[in-house]
Amino acid sequence: MLQRSKSAQSSKLNRAPLGRPGARASVVSAVVEKQRGIHAITDVQDNAQLISYERSVKDSFDRIEPVLRQLVAIQFEIDFASQAQEIADRELGFELPFDLLNAAWTNQLDIKALYAYCVFETYRRFCDHSIATSPLAMHSDSDFDELLEECGLHAVDLTPCADGRLAHVIRSVLRLPPNKVRRKSYAGAVFDIDDNVQKWTEVELLRERAGLSTSISGSRYLKGVVYHFSTIDGQCEGCAAHGSKDDQAALAGRDALYAFREAIEHTHCCGASVDLLLIGVDTATDSIRVHVPDENGDISLDSHLSSIELFEQTQNEPRDRAREQIQQAVARECPTTRSGLKRFVGALIENNLSQIELVKAEFDGTYADIGHAERFIGVGVGFEEIQIRNLMYFAYLKTIEEGASDIDVGLKIFKSLNISRGLPAPIIVRFDYHGSIPGARERAMNRCQQITEATIKRFPQHADGGSIHILKVVRDCQSESPIEIIDSSVPMTGIERKA
Amino acid sequence: MLQRSKSAQSSKLNRAPLGRPGARASVVSAVVEKQRGIHAITDVQDNAQLISYERSVKDSFDRIEPVLRQLVAIQFEIDFASQAQEIADRELGFELPFDLLNAAWTNQLDIKALYAYCVFETYRRFCDHSIATSPLAMHSDSDFDELLEECGLHAVDLTPCADGRLAHVIRSVLRLPPNKVRRKSYAGAVFDIDDNVQKWTEVELLRERAGLSTSISGSRYLKGVVYHFSTIDGQCEGCAAHGSKDDQAALAGRDALYAFREAIEHTHCCGASVDLLLIGVDTATDSIRVHVPDENGDISLDSHLSSIELFEQTQNEPRDRAREQIQQAVARECPTTRSGLKRFVGALIENNLSQIELVKAEFDGTYADIGHAERFIGVGVGFEEIQIRNLMYFAYLKTIEEGASDIDVGLKIFKSLNISRGLPAPIIVRFDYHGSIPGARERAMNRCQQITEATIKRFPQHADGGSIHILKVVRDCQSESPIEIIDSSVPMTGIERKA
Repeated sequence: MLQRSKSAQSSKLNRAPLGRPGARASVVSAVVEKQRGIHAITDVQDNAQLISYERSVKDSFDRIEPVLRQLVAIQFEIDFASQAQEIADRELGFELPFDLLNAAWTNQLDIKALYAYCVFETYRRFCDHSIATSPLAMHSDSDFDELLEECGLHAVDLTPCADGRLAHVIRSVLRLPPNKVRRKSYAGAVFDIDDNVQKWTEVELLRERAGLSTSISGSRYLKGVVYHFSTIDGQCEGCAAHGSKDDQAALAGRDALYAFREAIEHTHCCGASVDLLLIGVDTATDSIRVHVPDENGDISLDSHLSSIELFEQTQNEPRDRAREQIQQAVARECPTTRSGLKRFVGALIENNLSQIELVKAEFDGTYADIGHAERFIGVGVGFEEIQIRNLMYFAYLKTIEEGASDIDVGLKIFKSLNISRGLPAPIIVRFDYHGSIPGARERAMNRCQQITEATIKRFPQHADGGSIHILKVVRDCQSESPIEIIDSSVPMTGIERKA
Repeated sequence: MLQRSKSAQSSKLNRAPLGRPGARASVVSAVVEKQRGIHAITDVQDNAQLISYERSVKDSFDRIEPVLRQLVAIQFEIDFASQAQEIADRELGFELPFDLLNAAWTNQLDIKALYAYCVFETYRRFCDHSIATSPLAMHSDSDFDELLEECGLHAVDLTPCADGRLAHVIRSVLRLPPNKVRRKSYAGAVFDIDDNVQKWTEVELLRERAGLSTSISGSRYLKGVVYHFSTIDGQCEGCAAHGSKDDQAALAGRDALYAFREAIEHTHCCGASVDLLLIGVDTATDSIRVHVPDENGDISLDSHLSSIELFEQTQNEPRDRAREQIQQAVARECPTTRSGLKRFVGALIENNLSQIELVKAEFDGTYADIGHAERFIGVGVGFEEIQIRNLMYFAYLKTIEEGASDIDVGLKIFKSLNISRGLPAPIIVRFDYHGSIPGARERAMNRCQQITEATIKRFPQHADGGSIHILKVVRDCQSESPIEIIDSSVPMTGIERKA
């Protein structure tokens, strides 16, 4: 009963699409779609939900700068503090730390600190809302589970590039349920082999212990890499970690995938079978290229399936005919590949057509922000709520020492986005932990502290000058509780929450 | 045939004892033992081998300083370089880098660099010899495998404190085969839960895949912590990481063990059973305390089995009677513990009696070097050859950021041992890798580089002043090949070996 009412509630809150395309009839009829010129496969309802959510979130961050400009103009007025609170409350929905406003009459406003505070507070509200309402939940997880079973897969683990323009890759570009797909981002999508083999080992042991022996079922663990390129200004707007060279990005991704598979095969030999998948995303249009491995698991960099080509070829076809043509195209591209993987690739392409349609409808086919426009940097392990494009630059790392290049690229991006304009790079250091494991919260807190110290040590002049500000956050990912603010370089009211 | 001749050769080279005490008749008869007053359980032959090996290794390091003193005295003589090479070759068995000698007539000899070179070269020769001849190999691995099977164990994983006075704990104090027991040292024996759970996961998956389901066999993974204390000057010579407070050291070890077990049980629930063991070593006598868990796995800090007491109680008994008394003492101490674990604890106590006898015979019952006397610092993952007391301070770590306290304690020790006397702290950064895994060597080399940079950054004044010198080493632990010198802060001849 409880189960039922909970699910009814969540489907009301989240009018989200299926994990598997086409399994649910769209509320908008095919006739209407045709009139509007919308691709018949498009999940119109999901598109509407995604774009409205993205706009509301980004808008909450983008209101910060205009508000601060207003405050600057009135900072020396007698009743500045109360005026400022009124503006902030009206425009941003929260008040500002009294300490930061009060010092203004003798000094200039500390805009860097205020800006960081506003970003951090907006982030907190964004997380709280996301955890409480699951605005991006898919309509039904069981559809995705069914799809996986039909495809002979038991886990999907994707490594996108840490670039913020790929942060929405799971939920929007590929339309997969974020809570069911492992996503760990690395600069250039070049993932850490050991870390990923460890995750694989954990997944496989849990399966074996549950009596689901992979060697008996023949089921596979899918490891994918998502690199990116840009069909608009590809020389500058490709992957920074690979000098905007598309073929380098693809090659590096394939190398990592091969090394991952070989590492597993050398440790766990024959029974250890994984499927690999290399996907490229055009950050201008959100269309994808899928490099499908052949029957030997070899991935060609020269040939791929292009979702935008398939979009165009099937644009005027009815839904079923379009799906059929996509399936045929997949079969032609990789005739020898095992059928389960072909099925999964077909599903990804179909899913992506909705996203192409979204970018066409809302952004005239290509994004206005073809370059970096992230609002903050996220460092650590967690950030599940971030499934929105160009909102956060993500450095997935456990130590700055190992992840130095990830944090360096992030800071370089924010030098040009913010620091050059006198605004700070807001950095959110976050570690999610499993609350049921004793000491896990303390270890997450220690990691936050370690990373913060190492970041300040790495960029001392920026830290001293207020050009970077840091918020420390942990979260028990096994509970429904909000994020826990541990500490911050600006006075956060939430720190009282600390247990 | 080949197998046979290889085993004959190794038993000739390595007159080593059994993994399981008493299983092989000692060549020295019980009558002779009695005349000498040697405890009947003692493996006299193993003791002779261990002490002679330890002396020869330490002697090779301890000849360095007197040689350098000779060189200092003659450094401005006309034929200094050739005289120096003659002395070095005669006393140390190798020549010195020409560059370091040649600069001497215009400047003073760079003793710090020469000292570091000599330590590094001696270390290399020590490793080469150890890898080529396995001087500490146990007589037969199969005895240890049998013991484990009888005890219902499938893996033994011990975390000693990183203190160099525990470096011989596996091979000498507990007389276990180093190639069969996992040893990862941490300052204060407080190990990293995640790292250790990962290792456990790997071991268990390999077993499951091999059809050796732990949940069916009921076999356990033994995780032990070895803390230390000192019955001579315990206020100063206990564990530095715990302020020389024995009860703190024991408590911290037990906390880590409990957290390890809980982490596994929360992730892999019911089937995931591990045995825990807390062991204390008296670094003055090498005797042990074993805190045996009860039937619920609870470990008492207040009660333990003391090997030195049992040594004394059984000193005049014949072998069989002594063993019987030890077994009875174990049964009295932990009546409810599962019998397999009792069996293993009994074996450890028996094994340790040989070591107590060794310290009595060779060091009059207590070591002369009751404090730190390490010859160098080892940082990284590997160092399997080091099974000798007070030779190396070991910081097992993958990043300085995470292992900061381990390296800090190490440098503190070497400030008083070496730096205060104008000698450097020689640091060997080493990462062993599995050669069959593609890219593993490159990743090991990158780790060496990362650790070296982070160490220099952490102690810049020491690095600039030549008070720390660093040797970078990797090794394929799946091969019989020697260590590979990657780079060094002093001119090592071995760098040409680099592929």
